[in-house]
Amino acid sequence: MTLYIDLATLISSRIEQGLYRPGDRLPSVRALSIEHGVSLSTVQQAYRHLEDQGMATPKPKSGYFVSPQRKVPALPQVGRPALRPVEVSQWDQVLDQISHSPEHSGLLQLGRGRPDITAPTLKPLLRSLSRLSRRQDASVLTYGCIRGEQSLRQQISRLMIDSGCQIPFEEIVVTTGCHEALSAAIRAICQPGDIVAVDSPSFHGVMQALKGFGMKALELPTDPITGINLDALKMALEQWPIKAIQLTPNCNNPLGYIMPDANKRALLDLAQRYDVAIIEDDVYGELAFSYPRPRTIKSYDRDGRVLLCSSFSKTLAPGLRVGWIAPGRYQEQVLHMKYMGTGSTAQLPQLALAEFLAAGHYEPHLRRMRSQYAQSRDQMIDWVSRYFPSETRVSRPLGSFMLWVELPTGFDSVYLNQALLEHKIQIAPGSIFSAAGKYRNCLRINYASKATDEIENAVRIVGETVARLLNETG
Amino acid sequence: MTLYIDLATLISSRIEQGLYRPGDRLPSVRALSIEHGVSLSTVQQAYRHLEDQGMATPKPKSGYFVSPQRKVPALPQVGRPALRPVEVSQWDQVLDQISHSPEHSGLLQLGRGRPDITAPTLKPLLRSLSRLSRRQDASVLTYGCIRGEQSLRQQISRLMIDSGCQIPFEEIVVTTGCHEALSAAIRAICQPGDIVAVDSPSFHGVMQALKGFGMKALELPTDPITGINLDALKMALEQWPIKAIQLTPNCNNPLGYIMPDANKRALLDLAQRYDVAIIEDDVYGELAFSYPRPRTIKSYDRDGRVLLCSSFSKTLAPGLRVGWIAPGRYQEQVLHMKYMGTGSTAQLPQLALAEFLAAGHYEPHLRRMRSQYAQSRDQMIDWVSRYFPSETRVSRPLGSFMLWVELPTGFDSVYLNQALLEHKIQIAPGSIFSAAGKYRNCLRINYASKATDEIENAVRIVGETVARLLNETG
Repeated sequence: MTLYIDLATLISSRIEQGLYRPGDRLPSVRALSIEHGVSLSTVQQAYRHLEDQGMATPKPKSGYFVSPQRKVPALPQVGRPALRPVEVSQWDQVLDQISHSPEHSGLLQLGRGRPDITAPTLKPLLRSLSRLSRRQDASVLTYGCIRGEQSLRQQISRLMIDSGCQIPFEEIVVTTGCHEALSAAIRAICQPGDIVAVDSPSFHGVMQALKGFGMKALELPTDPITGINLDALKMALEQWPIKAIQLTPNCNNPLGYIMPDANKRALLDLAQRYDVAIIEDDVYGELAFSYPRPRTIKSYDRDGRVLLCSSFSKTLAPGLRVGWIAPGRYQEQVLHMKYMGTGSTAQLPQLALAEFLAAGHYEPHLRRMRSQYAQSRDQMIDWVSRYFPSETRVSRPLGSFMLWVELPTGFDSVYLNQALLEHKIQIAPGSIFSAAGKYRNCLRINYASKATDEIENAVRIVGETVARLLNETG
Repeated sequence: MTLYIDLATLISSRIEQGLYRPGDRLPSVRALSIEHGVSLSTVQQAYRHLEDQGMATPKPKSGYFVSPQRKVPALPQVGRPALRPVEVSQWDQVLDQISHSPEHSGLLQLGRGRPDITAPTLKPLLRSLSRLSRRQDASVLTYGCIRGEQSLRQQISRLMIDSGCQIPFEEIVVTTGCHEALSAAIRAICQPGDIVAVDSPSFHGVMQALKGFGMKALELPTDPITGINLDALKMALEQWPIKAIQLTPNCNNPLGYIMPDANKRALLDLAQRYDVAIIEDDVYGELAFSYPRPRTIKSYDRDGRVLLCSSFSKTLAPGLRVGWIAPGRYQEQVLHMKYMGTGSTAQLPQLALAEFLAAGHYEPHLRRMRSQYAQSRDQMIDWVSRYFPSETRVSRPLGSFMLWVELPTGFDSVYLNQALLEHKIQIAPGSIFSAAGKYRNCLRINYASKATDEIENAVRIVGETVARLLNETG
């Protein structure tokens, strides 16, 4: 049904990566049909889809060409973090983001990492939840195995094959969301005072865990296209007694890049040479717009030093609170951390997920969401180009549903959030993505929802407020 | 419906506490009717119930008398722990307890802290879960407020009035089970290396959290009737830089006592004098056999130094993974620990619980379970008296569903567990309830289920195996 969307997404990502430039002739319908093993009509559908999106233009008797480039804002700059281990701050700003529930606050939370949960492809999951809820027996109502439901772990093991991983279910531990996986991973490896190297900007949940455990974060310069800077990492490994590297290489949060496979392998080599663990957050990996999904660093791991953390919170629904970790050689320590943190994970959502996956409902849902998010990314970049000041820079997410927006140095997104309160709009200030509160001139915007007038209007208000604040300070 | 059960439970607990002795005349039907404001027929029902249980005997025209005492095993001795802070061990034995799921293992787990989840009074909860599962909206499927659902927090606030606490819902944080509440409480107060005083024997979940965070446990002598020894606590507070006292004063796990109110107040006074926090585990408090339920230490707290931790895991169902904490002055730190540990708690079970409580289904369920557990406690003590060697000592639980069994010094319950494997029976070895692995001559038995031949047979096998092992070593 959405085969043509996958193909269109692939072609558009090649255009974005510069493989085909504006005015270039695109591959013929016949060539693509052979290359991807799909019918001629599927390729034609894909090209018509790209035409609708304004990315490809047909010329009679000559085929399809890349459309003239739309004005797209510049990329964010590479951050220049402190290059020394720091204690993590910014808890007050994180708390401000997570204190509101969408039902009660009436706030349009443009900043949160929430997926769209309205797709009809989620219905079989709800039906399973509802049916299983009626079972008054130990399988649903009592403590399960600390490692998680075997049927679900088997499904997760199967899923991981798509990212290049052959991990038997016995090596997978189900967790209460990716949060618990990351937190357990950190504590399984590090002691208070230890140093953890992180990409920068980086997920605030991990940095707050470092803060809570009394560890230090070493933020590394991170390219908005290729990810963590490996030279800088090597220098840091030389200079500091780093215990672990924590990063999100696929559909990075918040920058949206996918680290090239060569960089993933090089990073693993470095980790081996300096004998440090890698905590890999793959929670967005299955939402990459290109198909097949990108490989994980874990897929190259040979000595169990990579702890792969993920969940169904971004692909299906955060409210399930079901994640997992493949902890490699650290399984025993991770189990201990899980036991002391929450005991076992709730049974009901695990069983419902196992059913949903076993019945083959997951892949169609993923295809649908990838296609929707790819479209709404383009829409959101378009709105930001239109409503934000011309000096605004934005990321080019290759997956997931978050846009990183960079404003001129000196701009204050924490203050922006305060100014937006009267409009009942909230963005995520860039400073929560830095241990030391850098990126205050940046913000993260969520584009998971399908485009609506309400969202367009909110982006317009944010853009206008940004312009006003820039004028006041400038 | 079960008013007479409540009254019978009250009278039987007075008999057990020695207020009425064997052969004593019990209060007249009329006197009890006036004292408790219930009808004469309710009192008569209560007495007939006590007669069925063999606790009261009617004499024509003279009323009811306490029955001649049945042979009951002696009480466990007061433990003599190390009286110095120790690092916590025993993780391997704990892992052995939590690695089996009841569905797959075929193991009769007599040792786990599981309630009975088969009561029909749970049905309204299952119906709510099932109905709410169908809601494909943000209230169920996405991240909620980090503090938890307001409707549930309001219900918990109402419940806490019964334990003498006036805590507004704003001061309650919902957690992923009591495990998360306890773990967050510990980490909110203590740093690695800090000393926490605990009752002894004590809940292994807390001690494993101390281990995971790198803290030390100071086990205090604990009386099987009155709880933690306050003189020993005072000496310890003089001698060591204790940061917090962690204990389960109501329906203690594993000893089953309820700490007298005077001791609770005296303990709080000590905590104030030496300026330490109290982490109070009340997870079994609502399962006290006497009515009204016992007060918490928190109910006497005036300066927010008590962190009250609880959950619905023992009263309703562990699989829900919904608990809470009233963290007093430590709210901000606890929120940080919750955020880094799991993010927000799953919405679906919170909403279902809020409905269940608001509709008044909780109290009838509690009454039913208290009555069932009181009966099966008597049954279990009877079986242990019958099938275990005569030198066996057992606790007198005043609530909840766990019996502590003490065998002669030198007996090894870890070895017993291995010997029981061939019969597919597992008990909880006493050593997991001690930081330093004491109480290896003790074991904990769960009596939550209604008496069945299968359970009686299992207890008989355990008793015979104990006797055989004692003969081999003796």
